[in-house]
Amino acid sequence: MARTVLKFGGTSVADLDRIANVADIVAARAAQGEHMAVVVSAMAGETNKLVGFAEGAAGDKLPREQFDDEYDVVVASGEQVTAGLLALALRRRGLKARSWLGWQLKLKTNKSHGRARIMGFDDSSLPDSIDAGEIAVIAGFQGVTDDERVATLGRGGSDTSAVAVAAALEATVCDIYTDVDGVYTTDPRIVQKAQRIEKISFEEMLEMASLGAKVLQTRSVEMAMNHNVPVRVLSSFLKPGEPNPGTLVCSEEEIVEKQVVSGVAYSRDEAKVTLYGVPDKPGISAMIFSALARAGVNVDMIVQAQARGPDRANMVFTCTDRDSPIAKETLESLSGEIGYDSLEVVRDVSKISIIGVGMKSHTGVAETMFKALYEKGINIDVIATSEIKISVLIAAPYTELAVRALHTAFGLDAA
Amino acid sequence: MARTVLKFGGTSVADLDRIANVADIVAARAAQGEHMAVVVSAMAGETNKLVGFAEGAAGDKLPREQFDDEYDVVVASGEQVTAGLLALALRRRGLKARSWLGWQLKLKTNKSHGRARIMGFDDSSLPDSIDAGEIAVIAGFQGVTDDERVATLGRGGSDTSAVAVAAALEATVCDIYTDVDGVYTTDPRIVQKAQRIEKISFEEMLEMASLGAKVLQTRSVEMAMNHNVPVRVLSSFLKPGEPNPGTLVCSEEEIVEKQVVSGVAYSRDEAKVTLYGVPDKPGISAMIFSALARAGVNVDMIVQAQARGPDRANMVFTCTDRDSPIAKETLESLSGEIGYDSLEVVRDVSKISIIGVGMKSHTGVAETMFKALYEKGINIDVIATSEIKISVLIAAPYTELAVRALHTAFGLDAA
Repeated sequence: MARTVLKFGGTSVADLDRIANVADIVAARAAQGEHMAVVVSAMAGETNKLVGFAEGAAGDKLPREQFDDEYDVVVASGEQVTAGLLALALRRRGLKARSWLGWQLKLKTNKSHGRARIMGFDDSSLPDSIDAGEIAVIAGFQGVTDDERVATLGRGGSDTSAVAVAAALEATVCDIYTDVDGVYTTDPRIVQKAQRIEKISFEEMLEMASLGAKVLQTRSVEMAMNHNVPVRVLSSFLKPGEPNPGTLVCSEEEIVEKQVVSGVAYSRDEAKVTLYGVPDKPGISAMIFSALARAGVNVDMIVQAQARGPDRANMVFTCTDRDSPIAKETLESLSGEIGYDSLEVVRDVSKISIIGVGMKSHTGVAETMFKALYEKGINIDVIATSEIKISVLIAAPYTELAVRALHTAFGLDAA
Repeated sequence: MARTVLKFGGTSVADLDRIANVADIVAARAAQGEHMAVVVSAMAGETNKLVGFAEGAAGDKLPREQFDDEYDVVVASGEQVTAGLLALALRRRGLKARSWLGWQLKLKTNKSHGRARIMGFDDSSLPDSIDAGEIAVIAGFQGVTDDERVATLGRGGSDTSAVAVAAALEATVCDIYTDVDGVYTTDPRIVQKAQRIEKISFEEMLEMASLGAKVLQTRSVEMAMNHNVPVRVLSSFLKPGEPNPGTLVCSEEEIVEKQVVSGVAYSRDEAKVTLYGVPDKPGISAMIFSALARAGVNVDMIVQAQARGPDRANMVFTCTDRDSPIAKETLESLSGEIGYDSLEVVRDVSKISIIGVGMKSHTGVAETMFKALYEKGINIDVIATSEIKISVLIAAPYTELAVRALHTAFGLDAA
């Protein structure tokens, strides 16, 4: 019996009307004979309200390890409410349905409360229930630890729940319903001619997600790739019956027409840190980057360049803009040990990336990219590449201009 | 190790400030070395909001058996939130605390969702946790069925949870913190000279509760009586340190000075139904009252009186005003079978009761009651008695007058 998993995020279940709309979508699919698990988020705004309550009750001096487990108890209630409500809305439509909470599913996580990782499923009656034609309405974002405490997966964790459930159920597809109708070649707010992508590989989607396309949570794409679960992104704002093809995220082999470049992503939450005149001796890079790692700074691009004199280098790296004050403080406290000349933090920068599995077999992609930017007078500051993406750091005011230029240069504009 | 149970209702945990106040009360008691379980309700207003959501999602045509289990999932989230928040507020004060949900406690109920009855506790680590000095913050009102579904105990069920936990923990006392500072001899809104009762027996409290004094839920008093758990009703609106003696509800033997009459209760949710000219033949009463029972009408007082002619009687009974249209409809549909002359429903009536264990050993209590009412010109319509109470039905506009007259007549007015 083929099973499918559907997931609806917070804006798709924001109020009773939206939940009714979700029930209509599910009912239309049930009428086609589908056997489904439906994973839901908290109603939009609920999670923020609950987080505010938890922070208010705890005050700001409670250490995290004393906060996170009870935070999870409070916040997980949001998905519980939606699951119960959708089950009722489905029954109202004459369907068999029931809600499943994390502890009922036996979705086991580690004890990293507030950002727990899924370890797997213990035996539960979920598959039998679905095979018997009962729609399983699953509270997303939550699981249970071995010592029977509630754990949440962290923000966006409902996507990950859905993919994990799909993997466990050996579902044919995991449909992520959201407030957009698919994954686009770039942000349609910047490029009017952005196009919905029909199919994209897991690897590309992973790059898109981690480079700032906010449609799917990175962790969920990783999990889908590892378990080879096809994921479809589609709109929950269309009525049942309206065409809603979405974007299929699947393994590369299933994509016949491979684009050289599938999409252009950008991220404004970037900062560039330069250490001038770092002594060029063994162990110095390790010292710098392990100190940053200990301080929780996630370093992205790294470039080392020859500086004045023989034994000196300039070290450039990027991190999120949010982390940049911590990076600065960390490096300043080490200035004696490292022995650099000066430190510069530039916060007004953006990272622009082109992504495409076709790059593996095509040459000249980088040249096309650099030329397109050069023709618009955009200066490239730092470059980083992987097998399927090229990222450049530029001055933030040029963000939109760069995205549009690259979108055109790689033939992604809609006709 | 002596254990105590505390319970805080919805108005006592209505917002973060009120929860902080509860945490202060608990902290002050912890400082005295008490080992505690604290049972909490949902924040005031939350349950109504969640009930509204559930009813909105289900619509008004879904049969109860398809509604109640998911209703429970939705509504139980309210207590879950409070439990997590109070645990955080206690940790903020440097105390060890954790939340317990119904399924973690293994508080087993039957499958009557929405109004489940507690069956008992399966083994859990709750007692060990409390004995180790960790304050157990328990989500009230909820348990878990044998098939691992969430079940709620019905409105007011948090009192019952608290008493059940107290019985299971063999607690020395179950303190019900509420928005009044104890049980009063009558409703202080009607009688200014009403007094807080120091001690009252379970039996008296049960009568008070079922006769309309809304301080404790009837079911919780029954359970306290069955397990001989002393229950104290006290105020959550006083600061720690302020005198807060409350009212102790305990077994009769522990009350040395027994009042003849401990309290005066009233209920306005009453209706009087009269069947005139019912044939006086065997089986006719059974036919009437079993039909009413099947229709879900809870019949209270019953009086049968001789009517016109030899073989006819008038049958009078009372039920809640809310049930009276159903009673009328049920009896009208049976008019042919029963063969009565006419049916009358009077809805504007009140029941006034005096309650006291001392009645068992005192004579003349009824006379004092009837005389006091007669002197105020109040006509008595129906009378019902038990070992420890006398109830009369009167015209509703006389309610306050009757309550005041009886409060004075039995010496209950404060000096």
